[in-house]
Amino acid sequence: MAAYNELSKEELLELKEELEAQFAEVKTKNLNLDMSRGKPSAEQLNLSMEMMDVLTSGSRLICEEGVDCRNYGVLDGIKEAKQLLADMMEVPKDNIVIFGNSSLNVMFDTISRCMTHGVLGSTPWCKLDKIKFLCPVPGYDRHFSITEYFGIEMINVPMTSTGPDMDIVESLVSSDPAIKGIWCVPKYSNPQGITYSDETVHRFAALKPAAEDFRIFWDNAYGIHHLYDDKQDYLIEILMECKKEGNPNMVYKFSSTSKISFPGSGIAAIAASDDNLKEIRRQMQIQTIGHDKVNQLRHSRFFGDISGMVNHMKRHAAIMRPKFDIILSTLEKELGGLGIGSWLAPRGGYFISFDSMDGCAKKIVAKAKEAGLVMTDAGATFPYGKDPKDSNIRIAPSYPTLEELKLACTIFILCVKLASIDKLLEDK
Amino acid sequence: MAAYNELSKEELLELKEELEAQFAEVKTKNLNLDMSRGKPSAEQLNLSMEMMDVLTSGSRLICEEGVDCRNYGVLDGIKEAKQLLADMMEVPKDNIVIFGNSSLNVMFDTISRCMTHGVLGSTPWCKLDKIKFLCPVPGYDRHFSITEYFGIEMINVPMTSTGPDMDIVESLVSSDPAIKGIWCVPKYSNPQGITYSDETVHRFAALKPAAEDFRIFWDNAYGIHHLYDDKQDYLIEILMECKKEGNPNMVYKFSSTSKISFPGSGIAAIAASDDNLKEIRRQMQIQTIGHDKVNQLRHSRFFGDISGMVNHMKRHAAIMRPKFDIILSTLEKELGGLGIGSWLAPRGGYFISFDSMDGCAKKIVAKAKEAGLVMTDAGATFPYGKDPKDSNIRIAPSYPTLEELKLACTIFILCVKLASIDKLLEDK
Repeated sequence: MAAYNELSKEELLELKEELEAQFAEVKTKNLNLDMSRGKPSAEQLNLSMEMMDVLTSGSRLICEEGVDCRNYGVLDGIKEAKQLLADMMEVPKDNIVIFGNSSLNVMFDTISRCMTHGVLGSTPWCKLDKIKFLCPVPGYDRHFSITEYFGIEMINVPMTSTGPDMDIVESLVSSDPAIKGIWCVPKYSNPQGITYSDETVHRFAALKPAAEDFRIFWDNAYGIHHLYDDKQDYLIEILMECKKEGNPNMVYKFSSTSKISFPGSGIAAIAASDDNLKEIRRQMQIQTIGHDKVNQLRHSRFFGDISGMVNHMKRHAAIMRPKFDIILSTLEKELGGLGIGSWLAPRGGYFISFDSMDGCAKKIVAKAKEAGLVMTDAGATFPYGKDPKDSNIRIAPSYPTLEELKLACTIFILCVKLASIDKLLEDK
Repeated sequence: MAAYNELSKEELLELKEELEAQFAEVKTKNLNLDMSRGKPSAEQLNLSMEMMDVLTSGSRLICEEGVDCRNYGVLDGIKEAKQLLADMMEVPKDNIVIFGNSSLNVMFDTISRCMTHGVLGSTPWCKLDKIKFLCPVPGYDRHFSITEYFGIEMINVPMTSTGPDMDIVESLVSSDPAIKGIWCVPKYSNPQGITYSDETVHRFAALKPAAEDFRIFWDNAYGIHHLYDDKQDYLIEILMECKKEGNPNMVYKFSSTSKISFPGSGIAAIAASDDNLKEIRRQMQIQTIGHDKVNQLRHSRFFGDISGMVNHMKRHAAIMRPKFDIILSTLEKELGGLGIGSWLAPRGGYFISFDSMDGCAKKIVAKAKEAGLVMTDAGATFPYGKDPKDSNIRIAPSYPTLEELKLACTIFILCVKLASIDKLLEDK
C-alpha cells in the first residue's frame, strides 16, 4: 500500500469509509481491553507463587546476621537481601540500602528530603525560589507527577536512540544552578525501550553541574527485564562511572523487584555513594523502625541468588516475548510504509512507544476508548501531561492475553489510520 | 526500713558499703541484659507464626473487592484490612487509610507533607520562620526525633495522672499560632502507661487553636494492648469527639499491628476526617503505587476479624502480665517507703515509668550498664534528650525472660539505691 500522504482526497475518503465500517463492527463487540499500564499478567504472577511457601510456621526466620526477622532491628536491610539486590543493581552490597515495597516511594522520599533538608548540607530546596528538573521525553508519568507535586519546574529534553540528547543536558546542567536533577530510566526506557549508550552514560558521569546539589535520578526499573536470551542490551554501571569521573555523589540509583516478584509486595532499594547513603540512613533512622524484614527474607530465600533471579526473569521473558511480537509484527504489517506512525522494537522492558502524525495522539486514544480499548492517556509521557506534538502513545502489552492483544491491535491500528486520514484531509 | 532521707550520714555510708559489695558481686557475673526497648519477646512472636501458613502457593490471593493482591491497584488498602484496622481503631472504615509496615513512617510522612505542602491549603510549614509542637513529658523518644529532625521547636507539657496538663495545653494552643501540633500516646502512654481521662479527651476535642493548621498527632499505639482481662482502661474515641465539637479535621490518628503480629512486618493505618484523608490520598497517589496488599491479605485472613485480634491480644497479655508483675512487685518490695523513687502500675502498654530522686537518672542508667544491664538512655523520654530533673527512667519488661527480669530488677534496684545514697550524702 502507498504512503497515506500520497493518496488523493478521494482515495482517502474511500479508505475512511471502509475503515469506519470496520470500526463500527468492532464497536458492536463491546470489548473491554486495557493496554494502559505496565502490569504483569496473571500468568507472570503465577511464576512467583512458590514464594508463598518459602516461609511457614515451621521456618526459622533468622537472617544471616543472626537477627530474628520477625522483630525490630536492622535499619537498612538484611544481609542476604542486600547481596541479592546489590547483584541485581550491579553495585557493591555496601552501597545499597533496602527499602519497602516500591521504588517510587523511595524516589518520592528522596525528593521530599531534598526539599526539607537539602543535599549533603546544601540549602533545602524548599527555601529556594525556583527548582528545576530535566525530563527526558517521552518518559515515565509517575516521575513527572512527583516533581510536579513538589512544584519543581520541568524542562523537556528530547530522547534520541542513544538516550537523552546529551548536548542539551550538558549545556543546561552546567549553566543553570536551579537545575537540581534529571529523571532517567536508563535501560529499556519507559516508554521507548531505549538503553542509554556507553557514551551517554559516560557523559552523564562526567557532567559538571552548576548546582553542587544536582543529582541524577537513575531509575533502573528494567535492569534485568530482557525479552530475549540472545539479544540483550548492556548498560554501563553509573555509580562506578561517576566515581571514576570524580563525581561519586552525583547519582541516586533506584530499583525494585516489582516486576520480578509481585508488584506492590516486593522489595525496593537505593544504591548510592557512601556520603549519600550516610545522609539517607540519617533520615531513615528517624522515619522508620526499618522495613519489612520478613518479606526481605522471603525474597532472598525464594530467589537464592542473582542467578536464580536471572533464571526467573527468563520465565517472565517467555511470557512477554510473544506479546511484544504480536504488537510489533502487527504494526509492521498494518502500518509499515504508510508514513502515519513510527515505533521502536525494544529488547526488554514493558512498553512500546508509538509516534503518530503530529496532532493525532489524543484522537487515537479517544477513539480506541470508544471501541473499548483503554490506552495510556495521550500526553502522559510528558511533563504536565502535555505532549507538544500530540504524537506519543505508550503501548503496554504485558497485561492482556495474546487473544486480547490481537483484538487490541486491530482496534489500535484502525484508530491510527482513521485519525491520520482525518489529519490528512484537513490539509486537502 | 526507714525512708533514706531519715538516715544519718553514718547509716547511709554503712548501707552504701553493703550495697557496693552486692553490686561488685553482680558485676562478676558479666551479665548481658536489656530492658531498653519495647520489643516483643520471641515467645510473643511465636503467637503469630501461623500467619506464615495463611497464604500458600495454592491460595487465591483475591481480596473481597475482587482485586488480585499480587498486582498493582488499590491505593489505600484492601477492604478487609480496612475493616479490621477500622475496628481496631474504633472508627468507620471509610475514615481509614492503610499504609506500610510502620505507623512511625506514617507520622514522619505526615509531618513531612505539612512541611512541604501545608495542611488543607495553609502555608507550607517550611515557609514559616518558626514551628512549634507541644510534647507531653515524659513521652516517646521517636516522636521527638521526628519533630527535631524537621527543626520544629518542642515545648514540654507535664503529664498528669489523667493525661497532659490540659490547662497548659489549652492556654498555649489558643494563644500561639506557631504551635502546629501535639504528640499524644493517649492509651497506656509511653512510658507511663497512663490513659487519658474522658475529660482530657473532651478538652482535646474542644481545643480552639490559634493556628488553623494545628493538628493533634494521636498515636494510639497500645489501643488493645491490655495486661488484664478484668482491669482495662477505656479511651474516648477522638475522631468522633472532634466531630461533635465541630473540629472534625483537628486530629490525625495513627496505629499499627507492630506489637500485635510482627514488628516491622505488620500493617499501619491512619484514621482522619474525610477532608484530611482526601489530602492524604492526594499525596499517596504520587508517592506510591499502593502498599503491600499481600501482607494486608495475610493479616486479614489470619485474624479474621477484630474479635480474633482481641483474642490474640489475650495471649500476648498472658505473656506480658507476669513480666510487669515481677517489676512492679520487686519495686514495691525493695523501694516501697524508701522515698527514693516513684512509679505507676499500668494496666497495659509496654512500659513502666520510674522516677528517681532528682539528678539521679543518668547515674542509675550508667551504673546499670556497668553491671551489664542496658536501660533506655536517661533523658530519652524528653525532647532533645533533656530531662530537666534528670529523674525519669523507662523500664521495658517485654523482651527479657522472667529469669532475666529478676536479675535485671536486682541490678536496677541496687543502682537506684546507690545513686540515691550518693545524692543524699552530697547534702550531708
